[in-house]
Amino acid sequence: MKEDWDDHFRDECGVFGVFGHREAANIAYLGLHALQHRGQESAGIASSDGHTLHAHLGEGLVADVFGAAQLARVPGDRAIGHVRYSTAGGAGLCNAQPITVRYGGGMIAVAHNGNLTNAGTLRRRLEAEGSIFSGTADTEVIVHLFARSRADSVEGRLLDALRAVEGAWSLVALTEDTLIGGRDPYGVRPLVIGDLDGAPVLASETCSLHLIDAKFVREVEPGELVFVTRDGVRSLKPFAPVRRRACVFEQVYFARPDSRIFDASVYKVRREMGRQLAREAPAEADIVVPVPDSGTAAAMGFADVSGIPYGMGLVRSHYVGRTFIEPAQSIRHFGVKLKLSPVEEAIRGQRVVVVDDSLVRGTTSAKIIALLRGAGAREVHLRISSPPITHPCFYGIDTPDRRDLVAANLSVEAIRERLGCDSLGYLSREGLLTAAGGEGLGFCDACFTGDYPIVVTDPPDR
Amino acid sequence: MKEDWDDHFRDECGVFGVFGHREAANIAYLGLHALQHRGQESAGIASSDGHTLHAHLGEGLVADVFGAAQLARVPGDRAIGHVRYSTAGGAGLCNAQPITVRYGGGMIAVAHNGNLTNAGTLRRRLEAEGSIFSGTADTEVIVHLFARSRADSVEGRLLDALRAVEGAWSLVALTEDTLIGGRDPYGVRPLVIGDLDGAPVLASETCSLHLIDAKFVREVEPGELVFVTRDGVRSLKPFAPVRRRACVFEQVYFARPDSRIFDASVYKVRREMGRQLAREAPAEADIVVPVPDSGTAAAMGFADVSGIPYGMGLVRSHYVGRTFIEPAQSIRHFGVKLKLSPVEEAIRGQRVVVVDDSLVRGTTSAKIIALLRGAGAREVHLRISSPPITHPCFYGIDTPDRRDLVAANLSVEAIRERLGCDSLGYLSREGLLTAAGGEGLGFCDACFTGDYPIVVTDPPDR
Amino acid sequence: MKEDWDDHFRDECGVFGVFGHREAANIAYLGLHALQHRGQESAGIASSDGHTLHAHLGEGLVADVFGAAQLARVPGDRAIGHVRYSTAGGAGLCNAQPITVRYGGGMIAVAHNGNLTNAGTLRRRLEAEGSIFSGTADTEVIVHLFARSRADSVEGRLLDALRAVEGAWSLVALTEDTLIGGRDPYGVRPLVIGDLDGAPVLASETCSLHLIDAKFVREVEPGELVFVTRDGVRSLKPFAPVRRRACVFEQVYFARPDSRIFDASVYKVRREMGRQLAREAPAEADIVVPVPDSGTAAAMGFADVSGIPYGMGLVRSHYVGRTFIEPAQSIRHFGVKLKLSPVEEAIRGQRVVVVDDSLVRGTTSAKIIALLRGAGAREVHLRISSPPITHPCFYGIDTPDRRDLVAANLSVEAIRERLGCDSLGYLSREGLLTAAGGEGLGFCDACFTGDYPIVVTDPPDR
Amino acid sequence: MKEDWDDHFRDECGVFGVFGHREAANIAYLGLHALQHRGQESAGIASSDGHTLHAHLGEGLVADVFGAAQLARVPGDRAIGHVRYSTAGGAGLCNAQPITVRYGGGMIAVAHNGNLTNAGTLRRRLEAEGSIFSGTADTEVIVHLFARSRADSVEGRLLDALRAVEGAWSLVALTEDTLIGGRDPYGVRPLVIGDLDGAPVLASETCSLHLIDAKFVREVEPGELVFVTRDGVRSLKPFAPVRRRACVFEQVYFARPDSRIFDASVYKVRREMGRQLAREAPAEADIVVPVPDSGTAAAMGFADVSGIPYGMGLVRSHYVGRTFIEPAQSIRHFGVKLKLSPVEEAIRGQRVVVVDDSLVRGTTSAKIIALLRGAGAREVHLRISSPPITHPCFYGIDTPDRRDLVAANLSVEAIRERLGCDSLGYLSREGLLTAAGGEGLGFCDACFTGDYPIVVTDPPDR
Repeated sequence: MKEDWDDHFRDECGVFGVFGHREAANIAYLGLHALQHRGQESAGIASSDGHTLHAHLGEGLVADVFGAAQLARVPGDRAIGHVRYSTAGGAGLCNAQPITVRYGGGMIAVAHNGNLTNAGTLRRRLEAEGSIFSGTADTEVIVHLFARSRADSVEGRLLDALRAVEGAWSLVALTEDTLIGGRDPYGVRPLVIGDLDGAPVLASETCSLHLIDAKFVREVEPGELVFVTRDGVRSLKPFAPVRRRACVFEQVYFARPDSRIFDASVYKVRREMGRQLAREAPAEADIVVPVPDSGTAAAMGFADVSGIPYGMGLVRSHYVGRTFIEPAQSIRHFGVKLKLSPVEEAIRGQRVVVVDDSLVRGTTSAKIIALLRGAGAREVHLRISSPPITHPCFYGIDTPDRRDLVAANLSVEAIRERLGCDSLGYLSREGLLTAAGGEGLGFCDACFTGDYPIVVTDPPDR
Repeated sequence: MKEDWDDHFRDECGVFGVFGHREAANIAYLGLHALQHRGQESAGIASSDGHTLHAHLGEGLVADVFGAAQLARVPGDRAIGHVRYSTAGGAGLCNAQPITVRYGGGMIAVAHNGNLTNAGTLRRRLEAEGSIFSGTADTEVIVHLFARSRADSVEGRLLDALRAVEGAWSLVALTEDTLIGGRDPYGVRPLVIGDLDGAPVLASETCSLHLIDAKFVREVEPGELVFVTRDGVRSLKPFAPVRRRACVFEQVYFARPDSRIFDASVYKVRREMGRQLAREAPAEADIVVPVPDSGTAAAMGFADVSGIPYGMGLVRSHYVGRTFIEPAQSIRHFGVKLKLSPVEEAIRGQRVVVVDDSLVRGTTSAKIIALLRGAGAREVHLRISSPPITHPCFYGIDTPDRRDLVAANLSVEAIRERLGCDSLGYLSREGLLTAAGGEGLGFCDACFTGDYPIVVTDPPDR
Repeated sequence: MKEDWDDHFRDECGVFGVFGHREAANIAYLGLHALQHRGQESAGIASSDGHTLHAHLGEGLVADVFGAAQLARVPGDRAIGHVRYSTAGGAGLCNAQPITVRYGGGMIAVAHNGNLTNAGTLRRRLEAEGSIFSGTADTEVIVHLFARSRADSVEGRLLDALRAVEGAWSLVALTEDTLIGGRDPYGVRPLVIGDLDGAPVLASETCSLHLIDAKFVREVEPGELVFVTRDGVRSLKPFAPVRRRACVFEQVYFARPDSRIFDASVYKVRREMGRQLAREAPAEADIVVPVPDSGTAAAMGFADVSGIPYGMGLVRSHYVGRTFIEPAQSIRHFGVKLKLSPVEEAIRGQRVVVVDDSLVRGTTSAKIIALLRGAGAREVHLRISSPPITHPCFYGIDTPDRRDLVAANLSVEAIRERLGCDSLGYLSREGLLTAAGGEGLGFCDACFTGDYPIVVTDPPDR
Repeated sequence: MKEDWDDHFRDECGVFGVFGHREAANIAYLGLHALQHRGQESAGIASSDGHTLHAHLGEGLVADVFGAAQLARVPGDRAIGHVRYSTAGGAGLCNAQPITVRYGGGMIAVAHNGNLTNAGTLRRRLEAEGSIFSGTADTEVIVHLFARSRADSVEGRLLDALRAVEGAWSLVALTEDTLIGGRDPYGVRPLVIGDLDGAPVLASETCSLHLIDAKFVREVEPGELVFVTRDGVRSLKPFAPVRRRACVFEQVYFARPDSRIFDASVYKVRREMGRQLAREAPAEADIVVPVPDSGTAAAMGFADVSGIPYGMGLVRSHYVGRTFIEPAQSIRHFGVKLKLSPVEEAIRGQRVVVVDDSLVRGTTSAKIIALLRGAGAREVHLRISSPPITHPCFYGIDTPDRRDLVAANLSVEAIRERLGCDSLGYLSREGLLTAAGGEGLGFCDACFTGDYPIVVTDPPDR
């Protein structure tokens, strides 16, 4: 994949929560750091000291937004946090999270991962009733519904709000005295519960638990809400049960390989994808090369089954992510070269299988193929450890329009030709789902199939 | 005065607006720079390109918050702006202005100078109806009332909102196509209209017009609303007329001396205050010394009438306003010395009249008196060009509690003793009002008298 | 004067030293802050802990360059410091001071105020002998001469170096165990000795002593070197005595008015200049207005003698010094307006005497005159409290070429015409020297007369 | 290895040069970016426009130090640059490079990679002759020798200087009209020549050439100097020939795997080290896991030969390198966890071979072993793809004292016990040299053997 040199996919976010820890903000800060791959544009923490909420948000990485002074602004023994890819909305309005507000019953902070599919309709209804919106984040819709609810408890208000929304949401929320976690009935986005020396923890992925030395307890179940107070953790399942539809793309690309999500090891699933890919789309070649780091595990799997030696054909720079001054006299494939550099000695004269996790627009893959050819590859066989992406995601993954999805517009052969590789092979949907644990577990694969499990009342106009 | 070394009074803000200028954001930026004395903590600009609003806000001075890149974020030919002293609210919530939102009828940005006296009541009512509040700024109350109005025009909504609020407000607002300015019926805070080569301009003070080469047209009248569109400027006077109660403290301290507010030159008013002070509270002395820069004009006036030579007894540093590292081995009067330095040669052996504009807590004045004595002054006679401040302001000036107002608790003689000066004299209320143009013009002098012209439904709990 | 809006003259620097104080670096930091008017481009401190030297330098104001972390880099109980206007040299080389080096005998740090007039010759000689130069600061020449000396003591080396140089120098230096201060035989630049609870202090001006609560002891005498060690202060007068030639321009403009230099109060001298100016160049007018702050004291003096009321006709902004984004549609006199704003009410219809300290290129004065006319002044009479500047300074003041000195090229009448004022008057040389204490005290007035007291072996090629 | 979490070895530097390119500074900036792994603490570029030299240096990464404004400070069509690990010297003195100076014959800038072994002696001699030193970088010694030379050409001066120094140096230098590259007679550090559309390029490693699309021409040979002028490239071999002693540790760790140095592919050499390691120190295990990224290639090689599956057992974070706020309630192995995270699913229940490139202090390796055990590894077998490091490097690699080199003090078995692994195996010296191309090529392996090829006149006192 690698649609642009410094980042390709942009998940909406990662969320975190902790209750009853002396250093709640600091723990949230570390927990968010481990979720940094889920969003690099802004970071925020809201905390409660039992009486009032505190919040600090900023643009940039967690370690840029928070220093000792900023952490001191979010005191208390409970906190939630959020990392986010981008300000989706225009107009320079503020979409950073957690959104922290006062309402008729006190204060609440909410942070959310996913995408609501009826946000536009709800927003228009709320505006017609006199609500104002500062930004475009779906979270603001949830907060308004919560504030307008006539229920007389936090729980009641939250149920009113969450019953009104459609789409994918894994959220954490904080009131003066309660930490809340919840996942939509389909369980599209991940959310797990951990335990840090007795303090309950919520996080998008288990890698967040590892860093802070918290134990993994279990996933928040699809359609489950958990309320954490001084009296312990209470679970609620207020929604009509539906079949789980976990986002398989989390397994393909988003989640960190050392995480365990949807009851499976991300690393193992990816390596198995590569194995199955080798079975489905074998290649005659001398070396299997990953596009680091997103294609690494699948390339290993491809090598396992194909018997073709696994090699380091591309090196990833540790120093990108900064603004670069491009020379006027342009350098070929400048952008991708800042991030990836071919290992000429491994490539020259070889028939190369290069493995990536997915293919969106195809522009970066074309550059990688050109890099490999420039380094002397005799043949370049591109293998993608997921099926062709033919449909946009409406549940929280920032995919482009159909017109920019190369596989929505071209045949595999036509894509191959455009990319300039000698062969191109994808993993089948069946192969993908089997690697992810089996279709029976319930996955959303709409980006590969157009089979959208949740109604999309308000498709984005793009 | 000089209650603390780097800033003493903190007005709530300054506001600015311009309509129909190619470089609207840039003009707003310069206009706000000229209002920087009214607020140094945050700055913001919202603009309209005719279709949508854009906004950029930040902490710090105008020139810190806005560079070329930031100004590019607020395109369009109309803009409003705001500078603000402080985030009044706690909880780390966001109070910067203009507040820019989407509501049922489109978008609106509002910036406001003053203080609402029934904000708490309105806020509770709005919260009970499901509104959420991100911060504690009164402006947010106005925006919610506006959004909840059932009126079907911007004008109707705004009237609904402004009829509900009590207190002091001079505001600017911007919708996609209209620039709005307005002043509460009492006209507590200033707001003027200017003309920049045909583009209407709104500003808190006329000094803002000077910098951008705009002509002064007139004051927005108390209780007047002006709507600026492509079709021109329309004026509305929707409120029942009441007697003007312009804040006399703007004349005493807030406004810049090169401004003209409330139909009078600030500089001339202040010099006349000093003249009258010399008549009311003469002193036997060798030199008249201002506390720069707030006491400068009054000290000149004092010298005019007393015949005592005017001299430079204190020098003001141009380089404060930064964080300073105080040595462990503390320096006497360290804070005030960073800002003010005595001119020993002018002071030694002299009987000094030192003139300041007002006296709040008295702590800084005590340090200044000690500085002058340390520099060899034989006698120090403190003269204040306004009456004793005995009551807090509820209309937009950040005065402390009564318990911290030295004149609310001590007699003049007791204050003199605490400050350590040889004599202390204040200007009378009558003298002040006469200097400001005459009582007949209608002034609010509640801080000196406790005579609050506007009902204070929700006094701050302090 | 005011040749450009944000700063007009640029003295080379200010220097500071302290010996035997627990918080030496912190004291140096404060001492330099009080000398900030002598240089805003870079700041540096070198310290000794008795064994080795430490240094930290940076671009910007003292408070920008030094925070707690930076002060911790310069430990020890003795320190010297420097503020500097600009990197005179080209080539992006480093001219910040103090210059701290290791040499054959240990380490030394040197900071210097003034200008050597044979630096080019010495530099060429030293380079021919194999010395390398990192920058263009004269200080580097002194350090090289010091290092190359065959003398076997710090004192001997320093004498070798200082006997070789010509020009103006007031320097502070620091070795592992000794603080040194010195002034060239003519005493062109100021340097004073103070006492901070027993710790000897050196500073360019007495205002630096005031801030840190140090007592003024005496000036370092022309041609005197002082060596401060654990054993006390030792004075040396190693040079043949010559007549003192103190820079009278320090009195006219550079020094802070609360300082005492060359045995006189700067404030008093300036006020006396204004008095004499009124006698020599009277005007028929209604108001005397200073160009703040450099013309303030002289304007007071002018009012004293002329009997014309002193008034505030121009207000100086506290918020300049930052980069400003100039609108494309240019504003008249934009630059000067950011700094100075006319008080229209004081000016309109008046005959105005505007007093400034000096006139260099005349461009800013022309803008000020236009501002005053734009504000309605009926007549504008410019009075300069020093003589016409006809010659560049070679002793440490950054004056332009003769071709850019308006008074070197035009008659007074022609200047008046160019500036657009109704009359123009200067103070005479005699009047200036008398105000400064009398010609007998010995002043350098070369910028007014071309009478250069110290040979200029290497005039700058400009 | 991984002695501390954010970086383990610190080579002295990387150097770069280009001659005759319109955008020389921009090319240098990109070339240095590709050498960023050789030094992250400071970066600098010096350029020539044919008449004078320009320079800009700063602390931090290349992309932090240089933006468009900074690049504009180094105009001209020829430039050299430098990245550096650390300011070795104390006293806060300036060691950043290139060092740019004026000397008797003009200007020169020098940047250097390596370490002189008689710098102390030379420095003392130069100081005795009157030279001053601003920092502690060896480069300054070279520059002084150059400046003091009596030769009448740049070439003559440079030869005088380089004949006097002992140790390892690969340098680039720039005068007004000449770009110079050179390598010590032993060829300890790498330096290559490239060609960018006709413009000669010098760089520490070939990866730097790839990024800018320059062709690799050849290595600068040991003892060779190249002079690049308008007239072309001239080569000189002024030193008595000695046997090449290229630093084998460049192959083990320093160089980037996509580089080709010392006539061999770094990646291939490392993979071969891993292969040989598997032969010499086999293990009974289920999975081979690299310590990413330094152990990756060797782990692949180990898997090649052992037949044990290669797996991703540790994930490296892309977001470290920033300052982190450690929680008071400490997290086990906090530092290493920020950088490396175990993939529990790959590790649990497995017998793990973990491969790293080298072992210095052993502290980080111990933490990694503990992480793997914490993730459920049944057995942990540590394999190091180089021999035990028993001696410090004096030629440019920042190794600790012998007392901190674990292998200098403990037997392999004792190290194993301290690290807590089940077995520990090193690659033999012979195995290493064979993998690197054969002992006959001439390598320095002093860190493994104590056989120092170049006399160490001044060992560091540590």
